[in-house]
Amino acid sequence: MSVEKDIKLDLTRGERIGLDEAIYCAGKSSAHLNRILDEAHVESARLLLTKLAESQYQSLMPKHRDALDFDAISRTAFFGSPHPTRTAREVVVLTAGTSDVPVSREATRTLRYYGVPVKEITDVGVAGLWRLLERVDELRRAPVVIAVAGMDAALATVVGGLTPAVIIGVPTSVGYGVATGGETALRAMLASCSAGLTVMNIDNGYGAACAALRVLRAIGN
Amino acid sequence: MSVEKDIKLDLTRGERIGLDEAIYCAGKSSAHLNRILDEAHVESARLLLTKLAESQYQSLMPKHRDALDFDAISRTAFFGSPHPTRTAREVVVLTAGTSDVPVSREATRTLRYYGVPVKEITDVGVAGLWRLLERVDELRRAPVVIAVAGMDAALATVVGGLTPAVIIGVPTSVGYGVATGGETALRAMLASCSAGLTVMNIDNGYGAACAALRVLRAIGN
Amino acid sequence: MSVEKDIKLDLTRGERIGLDEAIYCAGKSSAHLNRILDEAHVESARLLLTKLAESQYQSLMPKHRDALDFDAISRTAFFGSPHPTRTAREVVVLTAGTSDVPVSREATRTLRYYGVPVKEITDVGVAGLWRLLERVDELRRAPVVIAVAGMDAALATVVGGLTPAVIIGVPTSVGYGVATGGETALRAMLASCSAGLTVMNIDNGYGAACAALRVLRAIGN
Amino acid sequence: MSVEKDIKLDLTRGERIGLDEAIYCAGKSSAHLNRILDEAHVESARLLLTKLAESQYQSLMPKHRDALDFDAISRTAFFGSPHPTRTAREVVVLTAGTSDVPVSREATRTLRYYGVPVKEITDVGVAGLWRLLERVDELRRAPVVIAVAGMDAALATVVGGLTPAVIIGVPTSVGYGVATGGETALRAMLASCSAGLTVMNIDNGYGAACAALRVLRAIGN
Amino acid sequence: MSVEKDIKLDLTRGERIGLDEAIYCAGKSSAHLNRILDEAHVESARLLLTKLAESQYQSLMPKHRDALDFDAISRTAFFGSPHPTRTAREVVVLTAGTSDVPVSREATRTLRYYGVPVKEITDVGVAGLWRLLERVDELRRAPVVIAVAGMDAALATVVGGLTPAVIIGVPTSVGYGVATGGETALRAMLASCSAGLTVMNIDNGYGAACAALRVLRAIGN
Amino acid sequence: MSVEKDIKLDLTRGERIGLDEAIYCAGKSSAHLNRILDEAHVESARLLLTKLAESQYQSLMPKHRDALDFDAISRTAFFGSPHPTRTAREVVVLTAGTSDVPVSREATRTLRYYGVPVKEITDVGVAGLWRLLERVDELRRAPVVIAVAGMDAALATVVGGLTPAVIIGVPTSVGYGVATGGETALRAMLASCSAGLTVMNIDNGYGAACAALRVLRAIGN
Amino acid sequence: MSVEKDIKLDLTRGERIGLDEAIYCAGKSSAHLNRILDEAHVESARLLLTKLAESQYQSLMPKHRDALDFDAISRTAFFGSPHPTRTAREVVVLTAGTSDVPVSREATRTLRYYGVPVKEITDVGVAGLWRLLERVDELRRAPVVIAVAGMDAALATVVGGLTPAVIIGVPTSVGYGVATGGETALRAMLASCSAGLTVMNIDNGYGAACAALRVLRAIGN
Amino acid sequence: MSVEKDIKLDLTRGERIGLDEAIYCAGKSSAHLNRILDEAHVESARLLLTKLAESQYQSLMPKHRDALDFDAISRTAFFGSPHPTRTAREVVVLTAGTSDVPVSREATRTLRYYGVPVKEITDVGVAGLWRLLERVDELRRAPVVIAVAGMDAALATVVGGLTPAVIIGVPTSVGYGVATGGETALRAMLASCSAGLTVMNIDNGYGAACAALRVLRAIGN
Repeated sequence: MSVEKDIKLDLTRGERIGLDEAIYCAGKSSAHLNRILDEAHVESARLLLTKLAESQYQSLMPKHRDALDFDAISRTAFFGSPHPTRTAREVVVLTAGTSDVPVSREATRTLRYYGVPVKEITDVGVAGLWRLLERVDELRRAPVVIAVAGMDAALATVVGGLTPAVIIGVPTSVGYGVATGGETALRAMLASCSAGLTVMNIDNGYGAACAALRVLRAIGN
Repeated sequence: MSVEKDIKLDLTRGERIGLDEAIYCAGKSSAHLNRILDEAHVESARLLLTKLAESQYQSLMPKHRDALDFDAISRTAFFGSPHPTRTAREVVVLTAGTSDVPVSREATRTLRYYGVPVKEITDVGVAGLWRLLERVDELRRAPVVIAVAGMDAALATVVGGLTPAVIIGVPTSVGYGVATGGETALRAMLASCSAGLTVMNIDNGYGAACAALRVLRAIGN
Repeated sequence: MSVEKDIKLDLTRGERIGLDEAIYCAGKSSAHLNRILDEAHVESARLLLTKLAESQYQSLMPKHRDALDFDAISRTAFFGSPHPTRTAREVVVLTAGTSDVPVSREATRTLRYYGVPVKEITDVGVAGLWRLLERVDELRRAPVVIAVAGMDAALATVVGGLTPAVIIGVPTSVGYGVATGGETALRAMLASCSAGLTVMNIDNGYGAACAALRVLRAIGN
Repeated sequence: MSVEKDIKLDLTRGERIGLDEAIYCAGKSSAHLNRILDEAHVESARLLLTKLAESQYQSLMPKHRDALDFDAISRTAFFGSPHPTRTAREVVVLTAGTSDVPVSREATRTLRYYGVPVKEITDVGVAGLWRLLERVDELRRAPVVIAVAGMDAALATVVGGLTPAVIIGVPTSVGYGVATGGETALRAMLASCSAGLTVMNIDNGYGAACAALRVLRAIGN
Repeated sequence: MSVEKDIKLDLTRGERIGLDEAIYCAGKSSAHLNRILDEAHVESARLLLTKLAESQYQSLMPKHRDALDFDAISRTAFFGSPHPTRTAREVVVLTAGTSDVPVSREATRTLRYYGVPVKEITDVGVAGLWRLLERVDELRRAPVVIAVAGMDAALATVVGGLTPAVIIGVPTSVGYGVATGGETALRAMLASCSAGLTVMNIDNGYGAACAALRVLRAIGN
Repeated sequence: MSVEKDIKLDLTRGERIGLDEAIYCAGKSSAHLNRILDEAHVESARLLLTKLAESQYQSLMPKHRDALDFDAISRTAFFGSPHPTRTAREVVVLTAGTSDVPVSREATRTLRYYGVPVKEITDVGVAGLWRLLERVDELRRAPVVIAVAGMDAALATVVGGLTPAVIIGVPTSVGYGVATGGETALRAMLASCSAGLTVMNIDNGYGAACAALRVLRAIGN
Repeated sequence: MSVEKDIKLDLTRGERIGLDEAIYCAGKSSAHLNRILDEAHVESARLLLTKLAESQYQSLMPKHRDALDFDAISRTAFFGSPHPTRTAREVVVLTAGTSDVPVSREATRTLRYYGVPVKEITDVGVAGLWRLLERVDELRRAPVVIAVAGMDAALATVVGGLTPAVIIGVPTSVGYGVATGGETALRAMLASCSAGLTVMNIDNGYGAACAALRVLRAIGN
Repeated sequence: MSVEKDIKLDLTRGERIGLDEAIYCAGKSSAHLNRILDEAHVESARLLLTKLAESQYQSLMPKHRDALDFDAISRTAFFGSPHPTRTAREVVVLTAGTSDVPVSREATRTLRYYGVPVKEITDVGVAGLWRLLERVDELRRAPVVIAVAGMDAALATVVGGLTPAVIIGVPTSVGYGVATGGETALRAMLASCSAGLTVMNIDNGYGAACAALRVLRAIGN
């Protein structure tokens, strides 16, 4: 039985597709995470860690804990310095409710890691429409808007009709009954009649930020 | 083998729960429908027929065709005269798109059959928000608003935040891909964060009108 | 990266749609809940808290614990005094079994918070039909009946045929096998042939009470 | 490539499990059905055909059409004489609505084919409860009750609480929206809190009759 | 707010439908269970408790623990003496694998509570067919066979072809991947081409026993 | 009963969000489509029609048929002249198989309507990997790549790893068994580990083109 | 807009993976199929066509119709001569019922096209177990057994326990109610406790034959 | 009540189908596992244990813990010596990501238990295609390739086009949102257009190894 080393950091991915490797931490043991960070240390690599639970962070070796810029709400951590600011244009990240913040913050932190200015506007769900309408001018200045919402995800549809920007919808798993798990929010976003609205997997704030980075790179930023 | 007569018009239902019997026609043969209308004729009954396809209508006996007030869009027909007008308060029926009109019209026709004034406002989906916002004053005057929408059904959530009226959401089976069949619209309405939004089965315009009638009766109309 | 304050109590919602803001507590941290209660204290606001687990309640600051009227079964709490009694007409809340009581109690407590008299009748599922039939007179006096049931949710259909009142069905997640999660109860209520039965999300006793409040307001209570 | 004859009538099945072979006709070509009937003729076999659409029946060879006792509503046909009457005890078959009759009639006809007396009572759905309550005495005399219902299938639960008989629930695919296809009726019956209610596949009136035959055989009839 | 006592033992159910009330314990608090047992003590009632987890049993008051005949595998308990033996005919309960035993034992214990002789044969899944074929004679002597199986539930189909007895299939939630939760086993049993096979909810050993009791009562035992 | 005119062309949408109104034709009657084209004629409007079946096109009034640039494969039609060419950068549209062409062609035609150069490359599914690898240089020059694929939709993942461009995945309903309807392709794209891949509703080539237009506008084209 | 020729026969696939290109005909127009056959004629290619409906076959140009070896039951056609016989070992294809024959025949015909001897044994479903047990010796001689079954698909599990051969399960879409579409048969096969049973997509007889060919090639045949 | 001994080791299964009995440990108590190992000790049996969680292993009696060759990652254990090496041909096991290793290792360990040489290659998902292309020569030398992948499972499709070997796809439950539970990976593999790809249940590395063993046995190894 031949079994290979299970850590292979892909340190040239940035050149190929414009995105560094990110470490998806859910389900990884402390031992595994410590080995990854050891290797990143040796290679002087810059790394983004996602879905890193507070309990996982606390169980890391102290030197690794200290070296990380960890954020408990978004469950993200930076190893090494974030990229320098690369563009003057601010991406807007919206959430329908405060329960969606862990997901929006993951997008916000990922963008910040890549040097992108970002404005996060929370709790503007369309059951209280005036909260969103007050912010339309800010929305319309952004080249990309990330709309994060659970339950019926109606926010994404309304935003898609208010701005010609690229709209990236991120459904969240917030809620109970038919909302639990985010499937309803996902399908509502996909079925939206706002033309050209694009959609990510449930709770995938990281992916939404990567999609925004692909757009900014196409723009030349 | 003893098999009973399969037509038993329930002519006293109006007294018990305030709603006449309605004949659900989908899947019924012309022969069966003709027998029902024969019996209604004999009993001088007033009947509402729902989900009556144009081809079913055309295959009825001429005397029954002539006796019906048939509407092809909503697939409804009235046998006998509708109820006299019973209230001064106008129910509002909204649709997100023109494809939802067969369902909204079923609600509108059912209310008219029961003598309820109704205003139907079509094509006010929230991907083009200003269309709805122009009508807010009309909305806020109604005791009951029926919101008919397919796809992501975001209309119902937005309406729920604009008026204290009773809101009855009717998801429709309009659309393709994840929208087909109306399951997404249904779940989005159920998961809505507009508090107190009630929901009907997919394409059930008739049921929404009956729910409105229960409210009007509670009001005393 | 600009991130905004994540608590924005909406203290004028009552004026717009006739319902105060309610705090949905599931998934919120103690720190977050304490900040909300601090702000409510400063603003002298009246608040309803829903889905507040006993363990969340116990982890609040003592002054907030003391200030709350907490009910462990329904997982609701009142901050400030409930609204004064606003109507003489009693809403009836029914449950099919004793396992449905956490959901029915959420509806009952929400109505009480808004000053609405309510009668809660438990364990009248239709597998033992005589239990419901004994209560028909009480049922028929209510302008609104909330029917709370899991499993096959047959209670709602039977009640819909016994009274002309507004019927609000609340499916519950009680049960095992195909009943678990409440999807079966939800779909059975939506497919009911009791005309005009309206339906809420699974376990949404709070929403059912809000729907009842919209009806009472339309009545003028 | 060796391919075998595709018709193999199992003419000794009755001895093994007490049930003759039945021919499930859906999807079978006229040619195939004609060959089966040819073979039955040669063997002087008695056969029950199920799910035989009227168009299939009309496309058979005239001699086979003439030899069959065909019923268009239940889509069943008998080849050869039905079994002689085997028991004095009458099975009761109930339907919630008239749209469920094709399925109840399949059960009724299958029982008749096997010589079992049966009483079919239609249109006793529990949204109009008094229709069922009038028939309780008849119900309680039957050793087996087959309850056929679509939509929310609440009939089966109520019946299960009214009689100690064996209850066999048959969900039907009648309805639209969440009812279409019968999945909701099926799951509601399985989740029923009427203890000891057994359930068949959707639209399987034939299977329900076979289950009743197994019971009657256990009884000694 | 009027709220009623939430314990109402139904002590006359046995007379109406031939089955005593059973207490479904999942999700009930110790306090609630203690109150039920207090009441049963006062009324000298005989009770069957189902889905009673070992941890729930251990948290009961000592006097109640001592009074119960508890079985941890099936999570059942008897309060008071079981019914006297009522029939000489033995029901057979089969399981496909040893993981299905908690469910088969629930059926076995329920039958024993009602005084019915029962033979439980475990681990006769049809992936090793000879295990079942060795037992065919025992099978064919039983008036009722309960077949308990998870995963693909093929056992029920094979048994249905081996005996003319009443067959009651109980799917179990055993397994992983597509088997988890029992949905696959349930649907496989419902789709079985063994004519007259009846099916219960997933893991519902109790219900299967009740169905068997209805059959035995119809037989006159 | 007040019912409004059901055609309201939104002729200023282009100014608000950069996209003209498009007419979704599925389910619309010839009469309805003729009225829309009459109105477009009166207003000298430019219109894009989508999901226009050949049979619908053939049933239009001859003058409308003649005025349309209709493409049967993509079921699209242009009324009025397409927009002038607006950018020098070519969007690439890929399909996994030839059965996906109706959807890719809808995207291609929509882009052409808006004056965007586009290269459509068909039949490069990754079960025959070399077909895609030969085209990598073309892929890497495009600012936006639309990947259209049914079945397992693996094409989108592979493309996402080959280019830093914006990737828009469009699942198609091509296939049979688990592929039918496109749900599998949709979910596979959403679950893709290619970072930043965005996804549209099943068969939504039009929406993918609109998303590309939002990106090109953000780029300044 | 650049659009490429949409027919690209892959005539070297046989060398790479040991399987010729097959033409999946469902949904392809006659014009498209005629162009493919024109090209195959020019290239003197050998082709296998699958899912070719009789109506599609009848609408081909007469010269193509004449050149094809078409089988209406399996909806397959051969263009050019099948491969010469390549192995002495016979593959066995089993079906549970006669309705499964279109799928088993697709496997059988595909194997024959590739020169593999095959024995097709139909109607050996395990509800009548003795039919299969009579054939065990034939089964055990085959290196590969393809088990084709719809409904509960129990055949595959039983076969897996009777022979050490490679077992390839093919679920079919035969049946009604929970069986319709083949999802139940698919999941039952995947959940089977017969160790090492492999599974194909629903109705994919062609794929099963290809899997068998991969095995025979690994054997050296 | 007669209840049989619930442990029946099937020690002759190897002779019948070429595979020893394996003990599926999920959900089994320590007491039950200890009894099985006692019996294996008495019989001098060789056993493979699967899905044995580390906590279960730690709770065994010390003598049994010591006698087992336990691997925590794959949750497998060997009792007795593995089979001697039986073939010179190496099976290849691939994983798309490091999170899939628990499943691939189960396959690898099962093969090793049966004396089959195996090469495990991890982290070659096709979002970074070059990782797989570097290994094509190794792939093409194997008679059987097991492809283990979660999320979109695109690895299996690409591999199927690169080698004529037998391909066994194992979907894993790795991921979040639409990936959770492995259903998406499963369906993507089943819908793959790589001809002849066979599929196992989610996370079923053991079954994949058994399928490989059936192939090797057919080959004569």
